[in-house]
Amino acid sequence: MTHKIAVIPGDGIGIEVINEGVKVLNCVSQLDPKIQFEFTHFPWGCEFYSKTGKMMDDDGIERLSKFDGIFLGAVGYPGVPDHISLWGLLLRIRKSFDQYVNVRPVKLLKGAPCPLKEKSPKDINMIFIRENSEGEYAGSGSWLYRDKPNEVVIQDGVFSRVGCERIIRYAFELARTEKKSLTSISKGNALNYSMVFWDQIFQQLSQEYPDVETHSYLVDAAAMLMITKPERFEIVVTSNLFGDILTDLGAAIAGGMGLAAGANLNPEGNFPSMFEPIHGSAPDIAGKQLANPLATVWSASQLLEFFGYKEWAARLIDAIEYLLVEQKTLTPDLGGTAKTADVGDAVVAYLQKHFA
Amino acid sequence: MTHKIAVIPGDGIGIEVINEGVKVLNCVSQLDPKIQFEFTHFPWGCEFYSKTGKMMDDDGIERLSKFDGIFLGAVGYPGVPDHISLWGLLLRIRKSFDQYVNVRPVKLLKGAPCPLKEKSPKDINMIFIRENSEGEYAGSGSWLYRDKPNEVVIQDGVFSRVGCERIIRYAFELARTEKKSLTSISKGNALNYSMVFWDQIFQQLSQEYPDVETHSYLVDAAAMLMITKPERFEIVVTSNLFGDILTDLGAAIAGGMGLAAGANLNPEGNFPSMFEPIHGSAPDIAGKQLANPLATVWSASQLLEFFGYKEWAARLIDAIEYLLVEQKTLTPDLGGTAKTADVGDAVVAYLQKHFA
Ligand SMILES: CC(C)[C@H](C(=O)O)[C@@H](O)C(=O)O
Ligand SMILES: CC(C)[C@H](C(=O)O)[C@@H](O)C(=O)O
Repeated sequence: MTHKIAVIPGDGIGIEVINEGVKVLNCVSQLDPKIQFEFTHFPWGCEFYSKTGKMMDDDGIERLSKFDGIFLGAVGYPGVPDHISLWGLLLRIRKSFDQYVNVRPVKLLKGAPCPLKEKSPKDINMIFIRENSEGEYAGSGSWLYRDKPNEVVIQDGVFSRVGCERIIRYAFELARTEKKSLTSISKGNALNYSMVFWDQIFQQLSQEYPDVETHSYLVDAAAMLMITKPERFEIVVTSNLFGDILTDLGAAIAGGMGLAAGANLNPEGNFPSMFEPIHGSAPDIAGKQLANPLATVWSASQLLEFFGYKEWAARLIDAIEYLLVEQKTLTPDLGGTAKTADVGDAVVAYLQKHFA
Repeated sequence: MTHKIAVIPGDGIGIEVINEGVKVLNCVSQLDPKIQFEFTHFPWGCEFYSKTGKMMDDDGIERLSKFDGIFLGAVGYPGVPDHISLWGLLLRIRKSFDQYVNVRPVKLLKGAPCPLKEKSPKDINMIFIRENSEGEYAGSGSWLYRDKPNEVVIQDGVFSRVGCERIIRYAFELARTEKKSLTSISKGNALNYSMVFWDQIFQQLSQEYPDVETHSYLVDAAAMLMITKPERFEIVVTSNLFGDILTDLGAAIAGGMGLAAGANLNPEGNFPSMFEPIHGSAPDIAGKQLANPLATVWSASQLLEFFGYKEWAARLIDAIEYLLVEQKTLTPDLGGTAKTADVGDAVVAYLQKHFA
């Protein structure tokens, strides 16, 4: 079966890391001819914007809709305001294709650096299920009395029953399948509409999953616990903004941004899903082969898993862990001196050696 | 001069820790007769609610307005929904008295436990200036189509120019006085109204303070950096919600919740300011003399500082650091076996020994 994948390298280091991701997926195809990909590259991003005034072609969303999946590098570059570059590309894709599930593993692999004194891989092993389509990121608001002393700006967090139920249900299903506990993170004591609603839906759905152990934390307490007691968390479900903050915090304790991946899923398959490293475009190190491509390899693993190739998905993670334990072919962020492409090559070599 | 202080022990361990805070302030008065306090206790909180259906008396705000300051323990108890207990007491006071500045030190004292491998007191020394009157905590929103499939709940984050300018200006003034850098934390790339506005005001005000070094981080990146590079932060200014999350994270890296204090200031003195440990009421350990009163002692130090007694404010912090280094009289959260009251007594003993 051939999966048609749209590749959007985007900006900065996105270009370099996505190359390695594609390299690794091509290696999988080569080793397992049942798994075939057809890659189509799109040159969208901030450079495209500076030429055309648009982050993607006008018919970009329509063209992407014909693909089975999207593989994205990174978006953003100095000179283009973030709220333009991101709402024109990354967030636009997430929303247009109703990629309402953002799956972000926070898993400390063996050999990966951890800044916490008393924690090891067994303590840091969570999967964040972040709401990815609405909530604080609805993009709705108003801006009144511009530049006047009474100027006031309102940002609407929009939480629909449909939106909350489907993400919380997805998380319950995952917790049931994986036989793990499910933790909801919210802030009902202060966000007296949205998060009271969220808590209520979590509570309602938990009745349907009596076999799933549940916990519920306030976001502030959760941020603290991720540092002091990360072992408390297994599957975690939370809102768009809280998921954003806590998964970056998760990256900090699980080896750094160079290892953090995210899948933006439309689980029903009505629209293509998107796979990306969660780091930014890092303009300061772009073009120098300094970027760590392992987060992108991890997101390639998520892509394989989404298409049903669980075994290969696990093998990619094994390859990453192998490189981390071996400590020979790593980029500077992980204390090594390897180039971006060397790391991709090392992943390929590992796969060829073990699974040819 | 006699300062009239309203004491609201509140719920759970609030009652025990506030006792120690008052004990320490009384000791200061005894040692320095120029500093006098008149304490009036108010029995408000969840127990009061269960008897009266109200978190405070109807004329509570009016009565409190006659005081020079408020010393608060903790609010919240099982059986009373948080959004009721907090909006009826803690958040109500913050808002009624326009306590728009929340000052929260994140400072690792010598001897305090830190979960981070390579960080020491010199690396963790920040002051968070959290917006405390509006923003995400405006309490405004709507709840439509209740219990219907199309149910939708909207939480409004309300950011006024007045509200943003005054908090950011407060932070710039502090940074200038302390000769420290100022970091703004926001999320303009996703929160396309409120945080774009925040960033714009920060940018505008920075023109007036060319002598202050400024930085600006996205909240997700900031959460990560607080773990990986806390030394980057000196004075930090951020929104209500982000300040909530990041100061709990700050507590995690600076000795834990037992050491985290917060001052809710109305700097102009039009209304009383409020001083509180930022931990909750911890019902599970309440009434057992297990709670750590040092956060409350720290907030007593903030109270002294606000009333202009800088020297005594510093002495209370010295006392806390002394106990931490000595490791003899600490509560279980810090690995000791002392009772709540023992710790208060030890602070008093230190002050009497050194400053009698
Ligand atoms: C780039 C930004 C809009 C994005 C987000 O906040 O979702 C990123 O931080 C992420 O987590 O994927
Ligand atoms: C209790 C709660 C409403 C409060 C807040 O979110 O402000 C607390 O977490 C704090 O940080 O003071």
